[in-house]
Amino acid sequence: MQPDFDDVLAAAARIAPYAYRTPVVRSRSLDDLAGCELFFKCENLQRAGAFKFRGACNAVLALDAESAARGVLTQSSGNHGAALALASRLRGIAATVVVPEGAPAVKVAAMSDFGADIVRCAPTMAARNAAITALLRETTMTLIHPFDDALVIAGQGTTALELLQDVPTLDAVCAPIGGGGLLSGCALTVRSLRPQAEIWGAEPAGAADAHASLQAGVCITDYVPETICDGLRATTTPRTLTMVQRYASGILLVDDEATIAAMRLLWERLKLVVEPSGAISFASVLRHRDRFAGRRVGIVLSGGNVDLDRLPWAQR
Amino acid sequence: MQPDFDDVLAAAARIAPYAYRTPVVRSRSLDDLAGCELFFKCENLQRAGAFKFRGACNAVLALDAESAARGVLTQSSGNHGAALALASRLRGIAATVVVPEGAPAVKVAAMSDFGADIVRCAPTMAARNAAITALLRETTMTLIHPFDDALVIAGQGTTALELLQDVPTLDAVCAPIGGGGLLSGCALTVRSLRPQAEIWGAEPAGAADAHASLQAGVCITDYVPETICDGLRATTTPRTLTMVQRYASGILLVDDEATIAAMRLLWERLKLVVEPSGAISFASVLRHRDRFAGRRVGIVLSGGNVDLDRLPWAQR
Repeated sequence: MQPDFDDVLAAAARIAPYAYRTPVVRSRSLDDLAGCELFFKCENLQRAGAFKFRGACNAVLALDAESAARGVLTQSSGNHGAALALASRLRGIAATVVVPEGAPAVKVAAMSDFGADIVRCAPTMAARNAAITALLRETTMTLIHPFDDALVIAGQGTTALELLQDVPTLDAVCAPIGGGGLLSGCALTVRSLRPQAEIWGAEPAGAADAHASLQAGVCITDYVPETICDGLRATTTPRTLTMVQRYASGILLVDDEATIAAMRLLWERLKLVVEPSGAISFASVLRHRDRFAGRRVGIVLSGGNVDLDRLPWAQR
Repeated sequence: MQPDFDDVLAAAARIAPYAYRTPVVRSRSLDDLAGCELFFKCENLQRAGAFKFRGACNAVLALDAESAARGVLTQSSGNHGAALALASRLRGIAATVVVPEGAPAVKVAAMSDFGADIVRCAPTMAARNAAITALLRETTMTLIHPFDDALVIAGQGTTALELLQDVPTLDAVCAPIGGGGLLSGCALTVRSLRPQAEIWGAEPAGAADAHASLQAGVCITDYVPETICDGLRATTTPRTLTMVQRYASGILLVDDEATIAAMRLLWERLKLVVEPSGAISFASVLRHRDRFAGRRVGIVLSGGNVDLDRLPWAQR
């Protein structure tokens, strides 16, 4: 099932008491640098530090009481796990997160801090799926997928909803794409609220499965990602790919070097801590200047959960 | 001449078209950690990245046309110089900044970017003063002191004015103290608007001249500062010390280790880039928990200009 725009509006109403309405910030110096008017939607300031709280909160709140009481389950190397843990704590239910080895320590710590049970597994999709399958067989928990879930996608779409409410005259919106939940929800919303605006996905050149899938017309899932954007390593599903095909303007590829430079600029000029996956949409606008020249562009800064001991420019 | 509260109100009206009204942000997790209710006034998001723009802008705008046309002059190792450069550019006049060797590169770059002429000098107060004296003799520029100036102090006081307008029921406010411009202006404002509230200065233990001066009753100016808080190395003047004596509740000393830990917490939890001098007031609340337990405390995050290649926790 794909969500429609009414589902986005329902999600907005459902999560309003819990999620932050994050600010939209501007910068004269970054406008000059990019040659267009930029409107940064600060999901790094969202609860649990990323837009993921919107979708997780919507899915958890939509559970009937009986299902909720049995707890929820997901797999995540990062922000979705922390978001689901927080949403579950707010509803007073249990959450279990299957976490692959090598997940960023700061994100796993957040899951634990919010009270989730952590189940470790090897860092492969096969190991993740095996762990999830086993837990679903042994328990009665409800699986809340990080992105292949209509309620999660509708929740992520509220990001673009707020952005367009605050800046109704945007010409384009850029959002990162990993598994495609955020881009699907935002593309649906942009197409519904402001059909004449473009909505672009920004994808790491080293994890370009969505770009390749769009060209092939089928989901390419055997891609081995190699990127600093730890939040964008997942591959699309038929549900998210179909929505991206239908609603998005396309996908812009960005190499990690450009993403790191853009991230640093955001820290310097906006004084905001943004993670690599959160900076890539800004990088895509700098990399594709001609496409956006002189226009009004919304940029989703999707998250801010960074290991401060391992900043990318310090490791080069 | 000392400013009075009417001067703060006049400054607020004068700078309103140019300065940002910075947000006040909150954090559940930091409230829990500190054991009180924290209200962070985000002057790191101010133009040119620090509260200094308030005072510099007020002083530049208050100049009569003839004086303004002759340009302005100051000495600064950092944020005041950049703030004065920006304020001057906005008024369309020239600015010259005497900068000691060793000033943070990121701050000197900001001065240049805003169009100031930079004059280098040796990193001693004697060399700074000699350079200023020579320039005042040779030119007709107006000196705008970083803090020993009634218009600058009144401008800095607008920080507390906005904070109390947004959160009228504060029990206490904490602001950093270097030369004392910010604390003087904020203490005057707190005492005028909400006399029952406390107003504390936070000072590096390695640059504790203001604390010593309060005890001695005279300005101690031969102090050799040793602190990571590059914005807080100046010493008070009779004007600022008198205002601190009259209006402030006292000065809390904080060692650099506590400041660095507080800075890192702000980056992690608020997702805000705050410089060491901007984090010390939060550190002072964590260091003096009993004093603030259960109360509503305003914290001035005074600036966010950090060299991202030299983060303090990476150098330890």
